[in-house]
Formats: sequence, C-alpha cells, structure tokens
Amino acid sequence: MSAKLKAGILGATGTVGQRFVILLSNHPQFIVHAIGASPRSAGKRYFDTTKWKMTIPIPENVENMLVSQCKPEYFKECDVVFSGLDADVAGDIEMEFLKADLAVFSNAKNYRRDPSVPLIVPTVNAAHFSIIPYQRKLRSLKKGFLVTNANCSTTGLVVALKPLIDTFGPLESVIVHTMQAISGAGYPGVSSLDIFDNIVPFISGEEEKMEWETLKILGEINADGTAFDLLPETRVSATCNRVPVIDGHLECVSIKFKNQPPPSPEQVTHALENYESIANQIGCYSAPPKSIIVNPEKDRPQPRLDRDNGNGYSVTVGRVRTCNVLDIKFTLLVHNTVLGAAGSGILNAEIALARGLIKQIGL
Amino acid sequence: MSAKLKAGILGATGTVGQRFVILLSNHPQFIVHAIGASPRSAGKRYFDTTKWKMTIPIPENVENMLVSQCKPEYFKECDVVFSGLDADVAGDIEMEFLKADLAVFSNAKNYRRDPSVPLIVPTVNAAHFSIIPYQRKLRSLKKGFLVTNANCSTTGLVVALKPLIDTFGPLESVIVHTMQAISGAGYPGVSSLDIFDNIVPFISGEEEKMEWETLKILGEINADGTAFDLLPETRVSATCNRVPVIDGHLECVSIKFKNQPPPSPEQVTHALENYESIANQIGCYSAPPKSIIVNPEKDRPQPRLDRDNGNGYSVTVGRVRTCNVLDIKFTLLVHNTVLGAAGSGILNAEIALARGLIKQIGL
Amino acid sequence: MSAKLKAGILGATGTVGQRFVILLSNHPQFIVHAIGASPRSAGKRYFDTTKWKMTIPIPENVENMLVSQCKPEYFKECDVVFSGLDADVAGDIEMEFLKADLAVFSNAKNYRRDPSVPLIVPTVNAAHFSIIPYQRKLRSLKKGFLVTNANCSTTGLVVALKPLIDTFGPLESVIVHTMQAISGAGYPGVSSLDIFDNIVPFISGEEEKMEWETLKILGEINADGTAFDLLPETRVSATCNRVPVIDGHLECVSIKFKNQPPPSPEQVTHALENYESIANQIGCYSAPPKSIIVNPEKDRPQPRLDRDNGNGYSVTVGRVRTCNVLDIKFTLLVHNTVLGAAGSGILNAEIALARGLIKQIGL
Amino acid sequence: MSAKLKAGILGATGTVGQRFVILLSNHPQFIVHAIGASPRSAGKRYFDTTKWKMTIPIPENVENMLVSQCKPEYFKECDVVFSGLDADVAGDIEMEFLKADLAVFSNAKNYRRDPSVPLIVPTVNAAHFSIIPYQRKLRSLKKGFLVTNANCSTTGLVVALKPLIDTFGPLESVIVHTMQAISGAGYPGVSSLDIFDNIVPFISGEEEKMEWETLKILGEINADGTAFDLLPETRVSATCNRVPVIDGHLECVSIKFKNQPPPSPEQVTHALENYESIANQIGCYSAPPKSIIVNPEKDRPQPRLDRDNGNGYSVTVGRVRTCNVLDIKFTLLVHNTVLGAAGSGILNAEIALARGLIKQIGL
Repeated sequence: MSAKLKAGILGATGTVGQRFVILLSNHPQFIVHAIGASPRSAGKRYFDTTKWKMTIPIPENVENMLVSQCKPEYFKECDVVFSGLDADVAGDIEMEFLKADLAVFSNAKNYRRDPSVPLIVPTVNAAHFSIIPYQRKLRSLKKGFLVTNANCSTTGLVVALKPLIDTFGPLESVIVHTMQAISGAGYPGVSSLDIFDNIVPFISGEEEKMEWETLKILGEINADGTAFDLLPETRVSATCNRVPVIDGHLECVSIKFKNQPPPSPEQVTHALENYESIANQIGCYSAPPKSIIVNPEKDRPQPRLDRDNGNGYSVTVGRVRTCNVLDIKFTLLVHNTVLGAAGSGILNAEIALARGLIKQIGL
Repeated sequence: MSAKLKAGILGATGTVGQRFVILLSNHPQFIVHAIGASPRSAGKRYFDTTKWKMTIPIPENVENMLVSQCKPEYFKECDVVFSGLDADVAGDIEMEFLKADLAVFSNAKNYRRDPSVPLIVPTVNAAHFSIIPYQRKLRSLKKGFLVTNANCSTTGLVVALKPLIDTFGPLESVIVHTMQAISGAGYPGVSSLDIFDNIVPFISGEEEKMEWETLKILGEINADGTAFDLLPETRVSATCNRVPVIDGHLECVSIKFKNQPPPSPEQVTHALENYESIANQIGCYSAPPKSIIVNPEKDRPQPRLDRDNGNGYSVTVGRVRTCNVLDIKFTLLVHNTVLGAAGSGILNAEIALARGLIKQIGL
Repeated sequence: MSAKLKAGILGATGTVGQRFVILLSNHPQFIVHAIGASPRSAGKRYFDTTKWKMTIPIPENVENMLVSQCKPEYFKECDVVFSGLDADVAGDIEMEFLKADLAVFSNAKNYRRDPSVPLIVPTVNAAHFSIIPYQRKLRSLKKGFLVTNANCSTTGLVVALKPLIDTFGPLESVIVHTMQAISGAGYPGVSSLDIFDNIVPFISGEEEKMEWETLKILGEINADGTAFDLLPETRVSATCNRVPVIDGHLECVSIKFKNQPPPSPEQVTHALENYESIANQIGCYSAPPKSIIVNPEKDRPQPRLDRDNGNGYSVTVGRVRTCNVLDIKFTLLVHNTVLGAAGSGILNAEIALARGLIKQIGL
Repeated sequence: MSAKLKAGILGATGTVGQRFVILLSNHPQFIVHAIGASPRSAGKRYFDTTKWKMTIPIPENVENMLVSQCKPEYFKECDVVFSGLDADVAGDIEMEFLKADLAVFSNAKNYRRDPSVPLIVPTVNAAHFSIIPYQRKLRSLKKGFLVTNANCSTTGLVVALKPLIDTFGPLESVIVHTMQAISGAGYPGVSSLDIFDNIVPFISGEEEKMEWETLKILGEINADGTAFDLLPETRVSATCNRVPVIDGHLECVSIKFKNQPPPSPEQVTHALENYESIANQIGCYSAPPKSIIVNPEKDRPQPRLDRDNGNGYSVTVGRVRTCNVLDIKFTLLVHNTVLGAAGSGILNAEIALARGLIKQIGL
C-alpha cells in the first residue's frame, strides 16, 4: 500500500475543519481529497469561502480545492472522512455517510451516546474500537463505520484519570472545574465584549457532557464486543467556565478513590508519568512521545506555555497534591482544538488503520 | 460629635492604599488626615510619588498632601489608621502603631492568626469585635486596637457560606476553585507576559489562607470574649488560579452539609437572598443594600458586569444547583479590592465606630 | 415647563441604544417614554429582549417597559427621539419619523452627508443648528427636524482641531491614526478570536468617514443658514485600526498649519486647555467642566484611565510636541460610546432645547 | 570546515537571550558553547536560573549548561558572540569583548551610533559590513569586530522603505505610527495592570531611535569603507504606542517621495513584492523565502496571524494605498523578537560568515 489514503473533511471551513486541514497537511498516511461545507460555500474555492484563522497559511494543495456539498456522492472515493460539522447538521449528514458505507470520524456530539458507536479518546480507550464489527453487522456495512471523539474538556480529564484507575482501582468521585479557551466556541463564537476583562461561568451543555462522557470512555466494552458498560459507581461533578485564553483548556480536578487509604501524591505522579497508551505502543504517527507530561514546577501547566506539548496531543499535569476534602487534587491542560477535537479524530484514524479497520478504496 | 474622624493611611501609595484614598474621599464619617509610605516616598507630595492607577482622579484634598514615614508620631492625631502595607513590613509597623495606642484596621496578613486579633469580614462576623476589650487589657491599651480583614478570596467565600450555616447548620466540607483578578497582586504585580492569553494555576500562600481563615471567621468567639474557636469539623479544600481579569474574583464552590438530607438549591437560594448582615442592620454608610445578590440568569455572575454591585461591597452569587459529589454547588463573585481588601477595612471601622470602639482624639 | 420632556429611543436594545438608556436615567430634562426596536423584539419587556451589556443595571423605569416597533405612531407623544439604529434600517425609519414632524437626534451615518441636515459634535459646531429653520421650511415641518452626530473617531478629532483653527487659522493637512475600541463595533460585533492578542488594521468605511465628516463639521454654515461650506483646502488622511480595548478610541494626530511659522507646542497646549465650547457656555447639564483636558504626563492619555474624564464627554489630549514632517503632533482620547455616540445625541438635544428648537408636545 | 562554529550568548537568561537560545538550537552553522548572565546567575545551571518564557521547551543541550559571568575569558573559544544584554551593562561588557578580539553581534543600543560600528538590518543593508576592515584597523583587532542590529520598530520600517528608495528614489518624508507588542519590553516588562484593556501611548526613547536609526541604516557607506553617510534630506516622524499584543509590532506608514509624480500604489506593491535582499541572494540559512510579503487582503497584516511569516524573518505589508497628505500609505508588521531583535543578530552572523569575516578559532 504505497499511496496515501484519501481523506474527506466535512465542515471544512469551520474552526475544527480548518484544524483538520492543518493536521492532514504533510501527513504521511492521509491526503486531503475532498472537502465539504454548507451549500453556501459549495462550488467555491476553499481559499475564497473560508475565513482562515489559523496562524499558518492554508496548505497549497487545499487552497484552490473546490468545496462540495456534504453529500456522500462527492466523497465516495474517500477512504476516511473526518467530520467537523456543527451539531445542528451533523446528525443527518453523518448518518447519510455511514449508510453510504464510509468510514467516518466525527467530532460532533450527536452520536456519542449511541450504544453501537464508540466514543474514543485515542490515548485512553482505543480498546473500544472492538465494537466496530458489531456496528457493521448491525447496520449491514462492509467497510464503513462511525467513530466519535469526545468533548474537548472531557478529553483532558479522561487522559489523566485513565492511568489512575488502571493503577489504583476505581474512583468514587471526581470534581472538575474547567477554564476553557475561546477557540472551543468556534468562529465567530464568543463576542469580544463578552470575554474581555471577564469570565463567563457557564457553557451550554458542557457540564452534562463531561459528567456523562467520562463514564462511557472509562467504562468497559463487554466481552463479545456488543455493548459498553458505563463506569459504575463513579460520580462526576463538573463546573465549566469560559476564560479569555485563545487555546488550551485548564482543569482543576479533585478525586476520591474507592480503595482506601488512597495513593500518595508521589504515587499518583508516578502513575501519570509512566502512562503509555496503545497509540504510543503501536507507534502512531501523531501519537505524542508521552500521552501525559507531568510538569513539576509549582505554577504549571499554563495554557500559553504548555498547550503545544507533544504538538498538542499530550495532556500536561501539574500541582499533584493532597485534597482536604477528597483524596488527591491536580491541574491539567489539554489543547482543545488538537487532542480535544480534530487531533483525536486524526489519531483515532491512525489507530483504526493500524488495526486494519480502514480498507483503502480502489486497492 | 460634629467633625469627621481623622483617618491615617499606611502604605498609601500602593494599590490597596490608593483604594483607601478613593473610598475615604467624600466619606461622611472619616477624612484623610495623614498618609504614610516607604522612606523613599516620605517628604514628597502624594501626587508626585504615587503611580496612580485608579480610573478616577486623585481626590483634590489628598493630591498635594505630604507623605510621611510610617511612624506613629506622624499619625498621633488620627482617630483611625488604615493599613494597606505589604506583609514584609506590616508586622513591625502595625505593632508599633498598636503599642502607640492607635486604632488600626489592617489589610495585611501578618496578625490574622494572632489569637487576640479579630479577623473580620464586615458583612459576616462583626460579632468578633467583642474581643477588643480583652485585646486592650492584654496589651494595656486605652483606645487603640488592631483589627484585620481577610484575604480577598476568603472574603467572598465566607459571605456566601455564613447564611447557609446560619440556616442549615454546619458544613462538612467545602471545595472551592478561584479565578482571581490581576489587581489582587498589586502593582506592578503580574507581568503582562505571564497572564496574556494565559492562566497561572498557582498563587503563593493563597490556598492555605483560604483553608485556614475560613475556619476562624466562621468560628465562634467564646462567651467571655477572650478567644476564638475555629470552626470545628469543616474541611476546606481550595485551588487558586490567576486569570486575565482586572478586578473581581470568581469562585466555584461545592459544599456538603452535616445535616442530611441537605437543603434544595431553592432553599439555598432563599437563604442567600434573605441574608442580612449586622452591617446592614445598623445602617453603616458603606454597607450595601444587600450583602448577597443572587443573579438568576444562567451565566452570571461575571466579573466585568457584576463586580460593582453594591459599589463593590456586595457578593454576587449565581448558578446554585445540585452537586453530583457533594450536596450543592454555586458560583460567586467578590470585588477583590473593595470588599476583598480596603472596603472591608472601611466598613469594619464604620461598625467599630457604631459600637463605640473608636474614641475621637481631642474630643 | 415643569415636567420633563418625553424621550423616545430607536434601536433601544443595541449597544448605542443601551447607552442612551443609561444616559437618560436620572436626566433632569428628559425621561424615557417609548422604546423601539426590531419587530422581533416588539411587544416584549425591555429586560427580556435585551442582552444588557452595561456595567450598571438596567434603570428600573425602563426594565419592564414594553418595546414597540420603530414606527412614528408609537412615538407621537415624544418631544425628542434618539436614534441608535443600525445604518441598514436607519435611512427609512428616520425619514418616516422626520416626516411625522418629530425631533430626531441620530447616531446613524445615513443622513450625515445630507445638505440640509446638520452634522453636529456638541462641543464643536453647535452653530450648525442654524440650519434647522431652513430644513423645516424645505420639508414643511412645524416642530420636527433631524440632527446627526458624527462618527466616534471623527468626534474626538474635531474637538481637538476646533480650538487650533479658531486660534491659529486654517490647517493645511491632518494625518490621523486611530486605535479604536471593540465597543465601537456593537454587539456581538468583534469576535474574540479576531482581536485577542491581535490588532485588525482596517475598519470598513471608517477612514472615509473621518476624512469627509471632519470637513463638514469644521466648515462654516453660510450667512442665510441654508448650506454648509465644507472646510476648504484642508487635506485629511486617516488610518483606522481595531485594538483590544473595551472603550475609548485613541488617536495619534499630526497637523500642518497654513500660517507659517506654526505655533509652538506650548501655544497649542494653551489653546487646547482654554477652549470653551458653546455647550459649556450655556451650561448644558451633560456638558463636561472642560471639553478638552490636557494631561501633561508623558504617557497619557490612556483609554482605561482617561476615558471617563468629564463622564465620558471630555476629550483628553497629551503628548503635544513638534512633528518632524508636519508641524505639531499629539495624542487624543475620546470615549467612543459617550461623546463618540449616544452622548453627543443627548448633549445635542440639550443644546437644541436651550436654543428653543424643541417644542414640548401637549404644552 | 566541518564542525559548527562555537557561539556565545551574553544576557542569555533574558527575553532576547532566550530567543537566541531557541534560534541557535539545531542551527546548521552555530552551536551554543558558552552562556553568560549577571553575577547573580553565574555558576548556576541555565534551567535553574532562567524564567523560561518561550512556548517551546529549553533545548536539551543548553538546559544544564552552566551560566558564566559576562567576561571574555569564559568566551575565548567562541567564534561568535551574540549579545542580548540590557543597555545599562552592554556598553562596558561589549567593549571588553571587542577588545578581547571577539566577533560580537549586539542587540543593544549602546554602539548603534558609533561611527565605526555598522548598524545592520540583515535584509536591508548588509553592504555596511564593508566597514569591518576599517573598524579592525582602528582598534587593532585581528579577527574581532562589533556589529549592531537595529531597534525592533526601526527594523520593520527600513525593510519596507529599502525597495522603495531603490526603485523610486529618495524619500522626502516618513510619518510612522507604531503599535508595539509587550514582549518588546522584556520580562517582567510591562505590568498587566498597565496594559489590560489599555494602550500606553509612549515608549521611552523609541521615537528618537526610529527617527535616527532609519537614517543610518538607509544611508550609504562611503567609497573607502571608512564612514557612513546618513540619509540626507529625509525627515522621519515617529509616534510609538504599546498595545496589548504579545508579539509583533504593527506600523502605519505614510511617505512622500522626492521625485514627483510619485509611484502608484500598484507600483509600490510591485516593488515591495519583488524585493530580494543580499541575505536571500547568498542563500543564508535563516533568510526567509521572501524578505517582504505583501498580503492583498484588506484587513492584513495582523499580528497574531502574520508574525510568524518566514519564521519571523519576513516583514508583512498590506493596505498599500494613496495618502491624502503625503503620497502613499501602508501598514507593516515585523516580529519584534525575531527579525526585530535576536533574529537579526543570527542572520547578520550568517552573512558575516558567508563574507569570510568570521574566523573559526582553532582551525
């Protein structure tokens, strides 16, 4: 298989779509082949119809590509399709693509709760890809499937919790408080008048997502690969805030373990530092050297200084210490538009490819 | 007593000192009589030696006042002395002033833990003034005394917790995450390079202050007015962050009550809305109409829009709801340089005056 | 005439409209009587249909007022009507109101270039009200008329230029470079992703407005009050930038005088400091003590510290010095939503009232 | 000459010094060999004594390097020495290094006006290296010399002016207004309280530097390489502002040509786009593909989107158009800590190496 796989991008002109374009430029395994957006943009050159907001220029091979509508007929040559669609249209469009037997990696929330659709954070629960044969059987698909990645804030949280559960057993409770970057709201997204010299202590639907998605991602897939068992007994309480930061969600986390006495901060730090995900083990191209970086300085992680760790695919943790109320508390940072969005889609596709789930069309 | 009381300000050129100057301008009971700063500033006009950073001009009566050194001899005509001194010098200077039998209201942290010095948030625990006779006896003072106000973040927290304890009984645990404004760090304080497009997830000593001060402020004074009993059994866990906001500390709070079942969010809201502090009851000039304002909108309080509520003396609370892990969670906002600093000193002095603790010199 | 005049506000839910609401609350001469907005808001309570973004609460008398459509029939009892309408609808609506013989003070750009409509910055060219009799005659009006105020950046510029022309004669050329606050773009206006850690070196139509409006405002009205003579011979070159500041437009100005040798920086400073506008002379309620404040410190004016000078009605000037290319350069600051928008409308109405142009309906 | 040249860095712990460390990491021609800082840091590991503020980690080969004092004896093995020293110490230290016959590339202002020291913006006036033989002769040096680079704002300006003078002849006048990023003030530099929601319309000494340095850089070196002739007849007027942007100085420029009629905006654009500097021609490693990028969109350049063009070595120009007062105006952006500071030093050293001016010690 010498040629690169052909990739389609849905919602290519939006914030997540632009990040897909960047992450796929110079990717060794995928090449952008088709880009879709709203009917308003269809038929235009990508350059002309996109308010490009990335800090590096539009890749040359995409700049003049014609945007099509988000219909499967324009993407039938694509080996993988990445969806950065908004939730209000993602439901119908992604279902059409799935029915057309395409392999879809979606950043939208619409199918995250579907019992046959895996919700995968690539450095956490790649094991959940085992549901794909069952999903195909259920929907009579030959090569297509639908995989979702998680909400940006959930993503950071579960990366840090995974090694702790693996090492010290189940969690009784998790309290998490987020300070989320404006890029998470898309473009134009947050009005400058709302967020300059200000914080908005509410993000619609976000707390519910964090509280539920965490239980699916950290739960098990059953033995015959036909269902997910939500994490039992763990209670999650999330509070979400929008802050005047461009990229990078910061989260302050307090946790209580079921097994008492709990591990010490040193033991927790050790478990975090030594975590190795499947994505690392199978050597995925976008997998960061370390899924979790523990920064020992007292005032880290900081969004501006640490968000690009591991090219945005690492979660950075700091301030691991005892909590007076629960057992342990710490602060983590996740790049919300890389690992927290488009990057999870890309890395999920790399894992799926490595596991033989993606079939190259025309080979 | 027709004339205004003479007020001195220590550390008058600093951020807290400037706020004292503003709050005392046009005050019906106090008038600025003497201002002290470091030896470097002593002998100069206030205007010339101050990097004035308030958004209203220097009051005319202070503009040309000569700055003196912070020695009691220059303040002996003052009926009250407000200290906005930095902690590294406040210890010695405030003790000198106390020994000189002056009435000192300090914003510094140095004597907050002293067993004979009350730590008073004026809209919370004015009852703690009852220690003053004992403090005077202990130190052989006739009219002087020392009262401290709390850390800015502690201040917001205890205002909200007070009516809940009064109404529903003791708390088992409190988890609080703060997002604190840059003005809390003084001037020049936080470098712009550290906080633009960024959050610093650490403020030196702040979490310890919140965890301990809360217990003293919300604790009782014993029956003979000779000691404070720290709040027993309540555990407080604080996580403090510096955010790119100019004024106004936002705090996300989760609490668990000792008495179960706990009150509902509606009951908590009702208790908060109907709280009336002693400062309100005795009609202090600076006391806000409401010590606590509950904003029912889903995305409030917000620092820029709500920090000036009650002229900066009210605490604004929003998002009261059930917590999946503890019982109740909510978000609060306190103006860190008004109620959270200089304003508490002023309002404390108004209460002390109303209670007959301040003796006007020369009358 | 004991009762207050009844005021209507068009576009009352927008950014400029909200400022009108604030400025008219507690105004001694006007009281809000009717508020109009888009059909989408009509019929709703003001509180419910407005995304209130001011830092003080909605005045109680307006909070529950019902919003009507912007049709003259709902405003026929109004003695004055203030328009904060967007340009895309202001043209038709304001014309309807004018035809209905109402007195309209508009912040919109639509009629600024109309030869019979005065373009008035209240502290600059109140003399231009002399066109009103002619305007009424032309349109067969009895008591109605239409007055526009200027673009926010133009406003700051002409206030500073007026006393210089009065004192030293005509200008040959003006180069002005603005740094304009985000509130000038309304709400939601500027996306935070466009302006965080950034500057946008372009504001649509703004440079043209500054270059043309300056000539009309600083020009003469002819002897019989029937036409404006644009300022002859002066060339204006404007460059406009959007900067991450909430309120307050800063402008760097270089000017060349026709009469040579030019005045010295000291002479220019003296002329600025001693400028007294008609609005001052007739003692209008909103007229600031000084139309121009010259701040002698080397690093002023600054938006955050100086925008509220004169309650937002003063222009602050600093850094008056020699220019190596033209003659003199200086920096000025104008509060873009007070004097630069709604405030000009209010102060214009106060002047019109003092000059007997407004007839109280029903008296 | 197979091995890399050994580079020393003076002031290595500061903002400019940190940028030198980054730019020299993985450089094909230079390798960091010695790092110097204040006596307070000397003897410590670089990691331990540096408040690292770059967004990528400290390069591994420098992280544990011991910091020495800034004395020539510790740098005698260095083939080149880059100075990021503050002006208050740069004068003495750089002179010591020069006397020790070392090749010094300085970012400090101290010797920029020295008649035998070239002031070189690498993509503008590399021809000024011709003074080096004379400088050596004057000071009896064998291999050492001192080269300075320009002030950050001057740098952006002269890059844009150079091709215009080359193509259309001398300029009569230049008016430039800057909006300069906070990183230009170093660390801790600008207090957040001074620049949040604000602009400071003054930077000490900056306007004078821009007005004078421009004349030296764009002037000629005389025929026998012994003196610089300042640009005659051109008058430059600069106004400098500090704005809330992290990196990237934006400058609005108006110019008048001596030859009339002046070129059209199209002709100016063409000259800018086709400019090729000596650094480009000789293929220096750090030379950007284009020294000047003209962005045709109406709202560019923008600091956050364009500062990294050409890895920070390109100047981006936009909005080329007619000026109502002078002839032509446009807006430019320069990365103030790359081309505007450390990057100029590196690229100057690459040019000097290519021209045979640097002698590798020990070869």
